[in-house]
Amino acid sequence: MTTGRAFQDLYQEKYAHCFGCGRLNDHGLHIQSFWDGDESVCTYEPEAFYTGGYPENLYGGLIASLMDCHSAGTAMAAAVRARESDPSLPAPERFVTASLKVDYLAPTPVGPLEIRGKIRQVDGRKTWIDVSVHANGKETARGEVLQVQIPV
Amino acid sequence: MTTGRAFQDLYQEKYAHCFGCGRLNDHGLHIQSFWDGDESVCTYEPEAFYTGGYPENLYGGLIASLMDCHSAGTAMAAAVRARESDPSLPAPERFVTASLKVDYLAPTPVGPLEIRGKIRQVDGRKTWIDVSVHANGKETARGEVLQVQIPV
Repeated sequence: MTTGRAFQDLYQEKYAHCFGCGRLNDHGLHIQSFWDGDESVCTYEPEAFYTGGYPENLYGGLIASLMDCHSAGTAMAAAVRARESDPSLPAPERFVTASLKVDYLAPTPVGPLEIRGKIRQVDGRKTWIDVSVHANGKETARGEVLQVQIPV
Repeated sequence: MTTGRAFQDLYQEKYAHCFGCGRLNDHGLHIQSFWDGDESVCTYEPEAFYTGGYPENLYGGLIASLMDCHSAGTAMAAAVRARESDPSLPAPERFVTASLKVDYLAPTPVGPLEIRGKIRQVDGRKTWIDVSVHANGKETARGEVLQVQIPV
């Protein structure tokens, strides 16, 4: 069961313009991510035109995009949570993606998806996240993302 | 100077539905890639709404998407070129992305981009491509992509 505010609602207005997850981008995907225990989760159903080369499969670029935004949100939410435990930490403002690795394990159908994230490591401004995409209960893509907190 | 047909026009209709590069996707980006000597090149200017968290920077997911599609086309075009030299090779139909790694080196402005690809290695159905994104003459992102030819 997910809890709390959407991670993307933690961003100040000046950082909320992302096509993938910005609430202020009128054309965007508007993904929303939440805690589910120690993991983060986003459920998302892409528009039917986000097909890959085969009309029944999802576009690989969208899978990378969902991982990118979900992991940025997860890093932010983890930093906010850490600060709740230790108020001496600076208030985080935004994370940006330094690197993204995606392994496409199986074709992803165009339909409801679940994107899950798990913090692997935090070291200063860097946060590494393991992320996965699931369709119909099957993991179809797996990723590793390095998010870096912008200096505050 | 680029030469020849756009790589994406080498795809049969059944494989031409990709949001990033399919000529039959009415909503898609319709990127086109060409040979420029031994490298492949795609020039592309994203719509203004493909912003990242900061309104002046490009969305990281779009950068991954451009690398994904450009490298799939590059692998296809290289396989077509190899068959021109050796007609005993099977006619390639389509490559799909097995893995994609992106390093975001610097913010990419929202404006004209050049995406370049170079074949690193071909081994049977697998093709590894090094890919990069340039804006205003500066490399802003670098990627490594493994493309796999679907069995024919």
